Amino acid sequence: MQASTQASIAPALSAEQRAIIYGNILARRDVRSQFVSAPVDDAVLARILTAAHFAPSVGFMQPWSFVLVRDPTVKRRVHDAFTVANAEAAEMFDGEQRERYKTLRLEGILEAPINLCITCDRDRAGPVVLGRTHLKAMDLYSAVCAVQNLWLAARSEGLGVGWVSIFRQSAIREILQLPERIMPVAYLCIGHVSHFLDQPELEAAGWRTRLPLEDLLHFDGWGGDDGNSAGLKAAVRDAQAQATQGYLST
Amino acid sequence: MQASTQASIAPALSAEQRAIIYGNILARRDVRSQFVSAPVDDAVLARILTAAHFAPSVGFMQPWSFVLVRDPTVKRRVHDAFTVANAEAAEMFDGEQRERYKTLRLEGILEAPINLCITCDRDRAGPVVLGRTHLKAMDLYSAVCAVQNLWLAARSEGLGVGWVSIFRQSAIREILQLPERIMPVAYLCIGHVSHFLDQPELEAAGWRTRLPLEDLLHFDGWGGDDGNSAGLKAAVRDAQAQATQGYLST
Repeated sequence: MQASTQASIAPALSAEQRAIIYGNILARRDVRSQFVSAPVDDAVLARILTAAHFAPSVGFMQPWSFVLVRDPTVKRRVHDAFTVANAEAAEMFDGEQRERYKTLRLEGILEAPINLCITCDRDRAGPVVLGRTHLKAMDLYSAVCAVQNLWLAARSEGLGVGWVSIFRQSAIREILQLPERIMPVAYLCIGHVSHFLDQPELEAAGWRTRLPLEDLLHFDGWGGDDGNSAGLKAAVRDAQAQATQGYLST
Repeated sequence: MQASTQASIAPALSAEQRAIIYGNILARRDVRSQFVSAPVDDAVLARILTAAHFAPSVGFMQPWSFVLVRDPTVKRRVHDAFTVANAEAAEMFDGEQRERYKTLRLEGILEAPINLCITCDRDRAGPVVLGRTHLKAMDLYSAVCAVQNLWLAARSEGLGVGWVSIFRQSAIREILQLPERIMPVAYLCIGHVSHFLDQPELEAAGWRTRLPLEDLLHFDGWGGDDGNSAGLKAAVRDAQAQATQGYLST
């Protein structure tokens, strides 16, 4: 590599700055039970919405919209829709797992001061969208990138976010009066919290365990190993062990 | 609100720390043209993969796998698949837009030292998954959250990421030998870059403009206004104006 090439490489953030980025990613939680009633400032809400709006989007389509729900009556209807769907969901599990499912707290719709439905307008940029020509779901994926941007920004603001997905989609559409072309992608509960848990709730509850990242790596094809993977696998083991403690040394 | 409640609210990061979080979100780009050949250290690659692995997932399913592509022969096949699909894509546009489409650079497959396909195993947690009972796409959305975590972590490391979506899905499946249950979600080009652009390339090229976030807000239902939206709308205008400059004051 030439010195001139090296000189032109964009720099990383400092180690201290990267530690903040990684620490925030690792401390993010899906919140259900820790919401408090303290209001969320408009300025804070505006920042996390802006973080969402600056997510990547296919063809710069920006297909998202943001339906804020603060009316207790609307929240109650959404909660009712959850209750119906959650009873249906419980029936899909068998035996002991069904009983355990029923003990889990899966939403904070009524407690969170703000509910937010992030939607995707399938028609925002017309029928042919750059980058969506061969994978129609790319606009939905863009909306999910907006969700994750918002989630991480919220964590930095001390705000909890919980994604509630246990609804009949038709119920959410009806309650929020979404036009046909608008897909509800994520229904989020947002608010200040008493505290953030150290671990994901489902991990702490023993529902499923964290997988070893090393086992999820493939090289040059599914199940492949390019003969040059040992160093990366060792680094991944180290990084995951650190991340479990909430940090990543850089 | 009682003082005891206030005392128990989880704190935000400091203003300086939040500025780093937001600055990183706003400086992230979809990179196509700025990759340089400098190798990516295993330790850095391990960190960004770990950031992906600590994304939220429905039912703690962790449905993702990571297929790294470093073999130039495999990259060449992927690039060939892009070339075929991109010619098909160009034909979908009309007239002047087609000509402009053909001038755009849309991938850095061969230049980026690392290509990475992030996949979703639809069957990783069995047929019934907590939280996916009513929306089967939730596992795909979880994999997209992993993409966005990796993208933001990469930006903090000075690494560019470009998401290439212009492929026949069957071609990617065949080249990477993906089993039937494994969905390719994102094909990413990753590497050090000479520099990061100030704006998204499609925005700079005038392909589409950044939408006013204010126009994307709805209250308590599509098209609704709860009579309490003026403050938030003003805050959103301010935040978007700042974000366009690459920062958000906190």
